[in-house]
Amino acid sequence: MANKTRVSGFERAFNPRTISIVGVSRTDKKQHPGGTGLGFFRRLRQLGFKGRIYPVNPKAEEIEGVRSYPSVVSVPEPLDLAIITVPAKSVPQVLKDCIAAGVLNVHICTSGFSETGEEEGKRLEETAREIALDGGLRVIGPNSMGLQVPSAKISTFDDMPLVNGPVSFVSQSGGHAGAFLRFGPDQGIGFSKIISYGNALTLDAPDFLEYLGSDPETRVICLYIEGIRDGRKLIRLVREINTRKPIIIWKGGLTDSGARAAASHTGSLAGDSQVWDAFFKQTGAIRVSSIEEMAEVVSALLYLRPSVSRGVAVLGGGGGNNVATGDICAQEGIELPLLSSETQTKLNDFISLVNQSVTNPLDAPSLFTDASHLRQAIELLTADPGVHVIILNLNVGLFGITPPKLMRQVRKCICDFARETPGGKPIVAAIPHQGTGVAWEFAQKLIKEGIPSYRSLRRACRALNRFTRYNEYVSQVSGTCTDDLQDE
Amino acid sequence: MANKTRVSGFERAFNPRTISIVGVSRTDKKQHPGGTGLGFFRRLRQLGFKGRIYPVNPKAEEIEGVRSYPSVVSVPEPLDLAIITVPAKSVPQVLKDCIAAGVLNVHICTSGFSETGEEEGKRLEETAREIALDGGLRVIGPNSMGLQVPSAKISTFDDMPLVNGPVSFVSQSGGHAGAFLRFGPDQGIGFSKIISYGNALTLDAPDFLEYLGSDPETRVICLYIEGIRDGRKLIRLVREINTRKPIIIWKGGLTDSGARAAASHTGSLAGDSQVWDAFFKQTGAIRVSSIEEMAEVVSALLYLRPSVSRGVAVLGGGGGNNVATGDICAQEGIELPLLSSETQTKLNDFISLVNQSVTNPLDAPSLFTDASHLRQAIELLTADPGVHVIILNLNVGLFGITPPKLMRQVRKCICDFARETPGGKPIVAAIPHQGTGVAWEFAQKLIKEGIPSYRSLRRACRALNRFTRYNEYVSQVSGTCTDDLQDE
Repeated sequence: MANKTRVSGFERAFNPRTISIVGVSRTDKKQHPGGTGLGFFRRLRQLGFKGRIYPVNPKAEEIEGVRSYPSVVSVPEPLDLAIITVPAKSVPQVLKDCIAAGVLNVHICTSGFSETGEEEGKRLEETAREIALDGGLRVIGPNSMGLQVPSAKISTFDDMPLVNGPVSFVSQSGGHAGAFLRFGPDQGIGFSKIISYGNALTLDAPDFLEYLGSDPETRVICLYIEGIRDGRKLIRLVREINTRKPIIIWKGGLTDSGARAAASHTGSLAGDSQVWDAFFKQTGAIRVSSIEEMAEVVSALLYLRPSVSRGVAVLGGGGGNNVATGDICAQEGIELPLLSSETQTKLNDFISLVNQSVTNPLDAPSLFTDASHLRQAIELLTADPGVHVIILNLNVGLFGITPPKLMRQVRKCICDFARETPGGKPIVAAIPHQGTGVAWEFAQKLIKEGIPSYRSLRRACRALNRFTRYNEYVSQVSGTCTDDLQDE
Repeated sequence: MANKTRVSGFERAFNPRTISIVGVSRTDKKQHPGGTGLGFFRRLRQLGFKGRIYPVNPKAEEIEGVRSYPSVVSVPEPLDLAIITVPAKSVPQVLKDCIAAGVLNVHICTSGFSETGEEEGKRLEETAREIALDGGLRVIGPNSMGLQVPSAKISTFDDMPLVNGPVSFVSQSGGHAGAFLRFGPDQGIGFSKIISYGNALTLDAPDFLEYLGSDPETRVICLYIEGIRDGRKLIRLVREINTRKPIIIWKGGLTDSGARAAASHTGSLAGDSQVWDAFFKQTGAIRVSSIEEMAEVVSALLYLRPSVSRGVAVLGGGGGNNVATGDICAQEGIELPLLSSETQTKLNDFISLVNQSVTNPLDAPSLFTDASHLRQAIELLTADPGVHVIILNLNVGLFGITPPKLMRQVRKCICDFARETPGGKPIVAAIPHQGTGVAWEFAQKLIKEGIPSYRSLRRACRALNRFTRYNEYVSQVSGTCTDDLQDE
């Protein structure tokens, strides 16, 4: 019962009815490089947050038309969340006020604690931790960007759109959390809870993970960790949750120079790389090393049917390009089985061998100038017993598919096939693009149809390989019928 | 003397006075997916080629106002280069004509030979080879894009600008040669000779390499190889030339699926990856695995003073980003020495520790909002005895440097420093960009000032590491005073 209260109190951090922002200036004077109280106040109102907002500023009567309070203690109703943006040296007193006022959850945005490496900052953090632990206060931060929960219309991240979805991210870095918010939607990702927790005063990664493990709005969980206090708890939780909800982890600071940077970023002890190698082996968590890789594997997890089959056919064009395709696939653990002689013969009916090839990878640019041939080829490839996934390696803008009409035909062919064969062998696209322009728009349209699209073949292969390894892990650990996971 | 004649005859392939294009249609009917005779004819005239062009078409009196000939034999003056675009089955007869006419060099564009994997194509290639060898004909191709020599105003590559410079590329793939022509100039690269040689009928990579080794217009040599006939000759030449002119090699088809693709691309036997590992060890050639990597290391070779010192200081901003910086540098073989306590103290005078750090990598976004502080920091870093290269890890668009005026100041600060300290410790930039837009323009301006700029930190580190390893090899092999190669 106590635990239930705790969880439901925690729930209020992500679905608050009342929020107080402590340290809201009347004007735009900057207090904290990561964000200002006034900025958060404006942002919440602008997002259409449905609850009540209480700015705290002892020197103001009101802020932009909203009544201001001298302290959280004087706020007239219980607070679900207090966001603290006052200077570091004032934080201990504000925490005491929060305890006195019975605030359910606290987010400390302020920096200037142990991450400075200075004695003063370390002492201040120790003091704050003692106060918070004594008072049983749930603290996100300090030195942290805080929260974004699109369904609750709350966000302390500047200029990031609210894109609702089933993916949560627990990040020790606010910058990385922001990058995921910025780049994730381009991979077809929407968000449930984004949590940037910085120096982890009381709440650490395992605490958030535990919550998300039973959060019905979260289907996929991502973590960025620099240091961790309770490693055993993390292992236990990841092992338990990972078979139900995939967990993707970027562990930062595994090299000497990375660890040095972690110490001055969040005051973390980054730990031994061998220990983390063992961790990933034991837990089956999906390991990535950048936000982009994180988004890429999440895209596969969201849109592809789980499968442990590894045979892939790659359809592309350009001879030298095709040699690179073979090498990249092999290097990234993607198997390209020889097509059956039946498949090859049938492909040869409409794919000329001059400047082309129907071995796997297929070098067949002519397919991208004739959508009916492309459809035929895709059907023949999916009928081949050795093929379980098709990668379309499309250099949009080459191979004569630049004419908009032809591009639309190629896109329609791919999307139609995916739509007409639900539960069929999946298609993945590799489309080099530059974040804008024709190729990017092409990729975005495929993603909207549920076809994962990556900006290079290597990235597509890496995501597919991680996706398949995860499915293999789940199938081994669960020990149940792997048939459910197989294509054939 | 015989050799001299041979070389000077070869020289005429790259500086022809007369060119015949064999197979020029009167209309735009497509003959070859890689390029048409009419296309080449138009291209040469449009580029302002100063020599004489003789189209060959037995059915035409003239092509677009230029007199046409029934065969190279009937052309009224000696030919330095014949470009063959007729269908594969007609190629043997055209080769005989070229021998009869005493043509100095031949480029066969046509495909449909051994790369088809069909008996007919293989036989045709064997026939053509026998004719060419018997007649002592120098043949570039078949199944090849051919040549671009900006100084001679010749090119068989469509839509590629002529950018003159000291870099040559010998490529078995026309697509890769085209990609280098397209992306090289963005890395500050201009070209001496681009040679796409396809199936290597008589001339193979070592023949071109031998020529470029003594070509005064070539300072850096790049190779893309799928298969090679005379491996010993390649080793001998690379060892000999590589200490004078850096040789960068992308070997395609080193995996099973890559080798399969190579067989159907240029009919090559791709060879064993262990053999190639040994090759790179023995020759000190710089190994890359994409055109982009090739361009990136060439940029370092062109613009950085040779050095074997490995200590690097990275100047960037963002805490999580900085942890990734440390990890990426360590993974890519870049050493980030601790700064001296004197350097750290002086940096602390104007870099606040709140949300920042002056360990190496430096997390100091405030520097990018104040160009005078940036200048001070760069000067302090170059004065540190452990630092030999500075990487500016700039996320243009973040850290408040978006205002154009501030961006200009930051850029001016970097360029001024580089200009005012010629021969000083080099600066390299890592600027994420998307091939267009503000960040890309920023990077392009640095490159124009001779500051290599890469689109990610990982790419910058990889290029620097390859650059330094090459310098180490040269210094070890030459055995002479390594002082010339050192910073200090």
